[in-house]
Amino acid sequence: MYEGVNASDGIGIGVARVAVEPDLSFTPHAPEDPEAEKARYAAAVEKFVEQTNAQIDRMKQTVGEDAAAIMGAHIEFAEDEGIREMVTGSIDSGMCAEQAVSEAYGTFYTMYANMDDELFRERAADVADVKTGLLADLLGKEVVDLSTLPENSIVVVHELTPSMTADIDKENVAGIVTETGGRTSHSAIIARALEIPAVLSVADATVNIKTGDMVVVDGTNGKVISQPSDHDLEHYRAKAKAFAEEKAALEAYRGKETVTGDGDKKLLVANIGNPDDANAALEHDAEGVGLFRSEFLFMDAKELPSEDEQFAAYQKVALRMKDKPVIIRTLDVGGDKEIPYLHLQKEENPFMGFRAVRYCLNNPDQYKVQLTALLRASAFGDIKIMLPLVTTIDEVRQAKALIEECKHDLDERGVAYNKDIEVGTMIETPAASLIADDLAAECDFFSIGTNDLIGYTMCADRGNDRVGYLYQVYQPAVLRSLKRIIGEGNKAGIMVGMCGEAAADPLLIPILMSFGLDEYSVSAPSILRTRRILSLWTKEEADALAEKVMALKTATEVKAMLQAAAR
Amino acid sequence: MYEGVNASDGIGIGVARVAVEPDLSFTPHAPEDPEAEKARYAAAVEKFVEQTNAQIDRMKQTVGEDAAAIMGAHIEFAEDEGIREMVTGSIDSGMCAEQAVSEAYGTFYTMYANMDDELFRERAADVADVKTGLLADLLGKEVVDLSTLPENSIVVVHELTPSMTADIDKENVAGIVTETGGRTSHSAIIARALEIPAVLSVADATVNIKTGDMVVVDGTNGKVISQPSDHDLEHYRAKAKAFAEEKAALEAYRGKETVTGDGDKKLLVANIGNPDDANAALEHDAEGVGLFRSEFLFMDAKELPSEDEQFAAYQKVALRMKDKPVIIRTLDVGGDKEIPYLHLQKEENPFMGFRAVRYCLNNPDQYKVQLTALLRASAFGDIKIMLPLVTTIDEVRQAKALIEECKHDLDERGVAYNKDIEVGTMIETPAASLIADDLAAECDFFSIGTNDLIGYTMCADRGNDRVGYLYQVYQPAVLRSLKRIIGEGNKAGIMVGMCGEAAADPLLIPILMSFGLDEYSVSAPSILRTRRILSLWTKEEADALAEKVMALKTATEVKAMLQAAAR
Repeated sequence: MYEGVNASDGIGIGVARVAVEPDLSFTPHAPEDPEAEKARYAAAVEKFVEQTNAQIDRMKQTVGEDAAAIMGAHIEFAEDEGIREMVTGSIDSGMCAEQAVSEAYGTFYTMYANMDDELFRERAADVADVKTGLLADLLGKEVVDLSTLPENSIVVVHELTPSMTADIDKENVAGIVTETGGRTSHSAIIARALEIPAVLSVADATVNIKTGDMVVVDGTNGKVISQPSDHDLEHYRAKAKAFAEEKAALEAYRGKETVTGDGDKKLLVANIGNPDDANAALEHDAEGVGLFRSEFLFMDAKELPSEDEQFAAYQKVALRMKDKPVIIRTLDVGGDKEIPYLHLQKEENPFMGFRAVRYCLNNPDQYKVQLTALLRASAFGDIKIMLPLVTTIDEVRQAKALIEECKHDLDERGVAYNKDIEVGTMIETPAASLIADDLAAECDFFSIGTNDLIGYTMCADRGNDRVGYLYQVYQPAVLRSLKRIIGEGNKAGIMVGMCGEAAADPLLIPILMSFGLDEYSVSAPSILRTRRILSLWTKEEADALAEKVMALKTATEVKAMLQAAAR
Repeated sequence: MYEGVNASDGIGIGVARVAVEPDLSFTPHAPEDPEAEKARYAAAVEKFVEQTNAQIDRMKQTVGEDAAAIMGAHIEFAEDEGIREMVTGSIDSGMCAEQAVSEAYGTFYTMYANMDDELFRERAADVADVKTGLLADLLGKEVVDLSTLPENSIVVVHELTPSMTADIDKENVAGIVTETGGRTSHSAIIARALEIPAVLSVADATVNIKTGDMVVVDGTNGKVISQPSDHDLEHYRAKAKAFAEEKAALEAYRGKETVTGDGDKKLLVANIGNPDDANAALEHDAEGVGLFRSEFLFMDAKELPSEDEQFAAYQKVALRMKDKPVIIRTLDVGGDKEIPYLHLQKEENPFMGFRAVRYCLNNPDQYKVQLTALLRASAFGDIKIMLPLVTTIDEVRQAKALIEECKHDLDERGVAYNKDIEVGTMIETPAASLIADDLAAECDFFSIGTNDLIGYTMCADRGNDRVGYLYQVYQPAVLRSLKRIIGEGNKAGIMVGMCGEAAADPLLIPILMSFGLDEYSVSAPSILRTRRILSLWTKEEADALAEKVMALKTATEVKAMLQAAAR
């Protein structure tokens, strides 16, 4: 049994196909005619771009627009002018095309792979992919082909490059095992989009697992069992069946209202990362968007997106979601989210630094571009504005003053917007929890960001494994903070939602219900399950459980009690 | 008027002495006899070490043992075997001693100056100092001499190196201005120890200020006024007089009890960083030690200090403080405190990482060495054990279980200790504040660490200037947390103290008194002033102010009201 990163839920049982990279070694030689060598290189680039475009078209069919967009980076790296100059310069100075390509892409790979920022490190895989593609073409070799696998294949590979993933035939691949990659890697994102169980970062998987081995991939728990015993097989077949049955059973909740066991209506909405995700939200039966992260607009760009560009994106979501509520969070830059062209200073403790609403309020002209775009989009749907990382009343007042200025400007320009647009805040800092009553008086709604709230409350970075035992929503300190926030919001009569991962935690839902949470904003695939859990508890039952839970003093006891009570 | 870092309190008025470094340029040449050249180098090292030892002796007289210890690094860097090999190797390969010294120390300077960790960056100044000393000797030049200045001199210098500081004659230097250095630099520490007003990091000070200029140094507010107007001079003379008078007036509180305006007894104790600081605490009339940071034992060492070494240090403090209480905090490693030989992993957000009690509880055998040493020392005074960075009940229970194991071992060894030793916790995390009632049931005392509590509550790194406007004890969220913590401690009948900088904040003291704070642990020089402020407020007056303050919604309003009410 091997452990790894649980990157995509589900149980896959099948036969291992260990995909070994082709031998791309070569003997450097000085070309006789550098111009001919450069032509070989140019042809390899052209062929690579052609193949990649074909892959992108296939991916649009199988995994959707967003996943396909990831492959765009390949084309960029293949056609990059700077790299091209490096390669042709090396050829001019007497290198063969293979060596020139290998060295130029090798340099960029090392550069990206050694960067502190995970987002950049992930680009290293793209660079390696392009290098492999170009070299294979120059050497006349074929790269790993995952498009013609037999049924029930378990793909085992060192690194699942985006181009491999593009070729994967969802029908025939029962599971994926890799030796590298985390939950946020491109491979993980695509595996989840394809709904293929995947376990990443299993050390020496391509050595320990042989093609033909029977393999179980438990993508939910991050476990891989090679050559399972009959007992194991039986166990996992039952689990796979239960997983499939649960998925099917949840279909009964599609198109239904979200109500508690008492028939109390709750709002069940989706977290989305870009306008296209709105489709997935609707497909999964979301009643709106509880968190639209506006970062994608900034992270995918080379410079600040204009008011019109932002407006177009917000309007797109508003139109798709029709009259359903759409909460859009203003730029949450900093922390673990870097946007190179903003040139933010490197910080010792970025989570406790100059980020999110702090950055925005200190760049009011830039912030007003986003606020104006949001206001304009509010003419096309039920858009609400949400501020991230609030710690003081001042911040809310300043942001609201800027919104008033933007409204005034729009009035002067004669542009339509929703004059009664709601403005709310994330509650994700200990400070916001402590002044929740004051904030409630200034805001139209709360949305609790448990991901950050847990981290700040417990002083534990969620990205730091060594303090993972402290980073738990079941910590009594965290539960008390949640109870206080929801209670103060209820008292003030504003909507209280939650857009952190805890909103979709089946164990926690009765507790949140008891505290009085109005809105549950979860990832699209969690919508139906959350609706089901909410329907299984009456307020009285939830209150009884919450009372017992809140008397406990440790996270271990809390989790055990919630597990025992789970429905 | 120039602004800089307020590194040492007080007002200095005098005549500028701009100390320009000697010209240490040289023309590299190949020595005829490398052995003779090496002998020149060896002689320079020997002379430098001799001079430094003489400086250390002088410093012991003027600034005390600890400040003198800083100079020890100079001797280490001068005699370092690795550097010596680099220099002699370079000489062997044909360099002159000047160039070999310049290049070897230049390499180390660059290395230290570019390190992320501020503690290492500060070492760069030491390296530069050694380089200057050796080069000056090789070139037959004199380095800046600050030991023969006329009365009322204001020293203006690019960087105040430790060796310059060692020479400073406290009687004649009225103020210090530098172009580099922060509040934690060696220069700042020594300036404070000498009680000379100092403003550091004033850009281009050695260019803009000329020797002979009249200069005012406002070390309290980080301001430097060159060629002040008569009006300015009058203003600052009055301020200097007030500063001196306040200092003299505070002498009236020496040897007095610490009581509020109603005659309620409070405990007024000192924060110390090493056993020798206990002397300063007693000199300033501390009634005990509220926080003895045990890190010095670990940071000054090359490997883990043994039980006996630790015991000796704790016993020393216990004996010096006689029957006065001494709260010793167990190792608070991590965050901004690095101990190289523990090989802790570099973290993205060290303040939210694997530090303090987290590290200790995960290394129980190592932790038990410290706990055992503390228990042994408890036979010699009123020692109490304090845990840093607690966020859960589990941590307190685990630490107490380890202490029980250590007691058992000591019983078996037949070694004496205080069987009723008190165990308390720092309250410095939002989690600890939220579960203060549960923690109070497990602990003998609380000590509120406002420095970290403010940072975590406001999600603002105190070392990050860009979020300094949020990092304020006057934030309503922080005040509510303090009120809650003190209230829960009072309710449980345990002593509640505070060892963060806020305990010595004259503005805040009435509020803390109103909340019910029992113990104020402050830096030694703040003792008398804190005693005075406490004596100026009755509980009723403090309560009336606190009630008004707690109704305010912004830090700006809070601070303004406290300033208006200040006594």
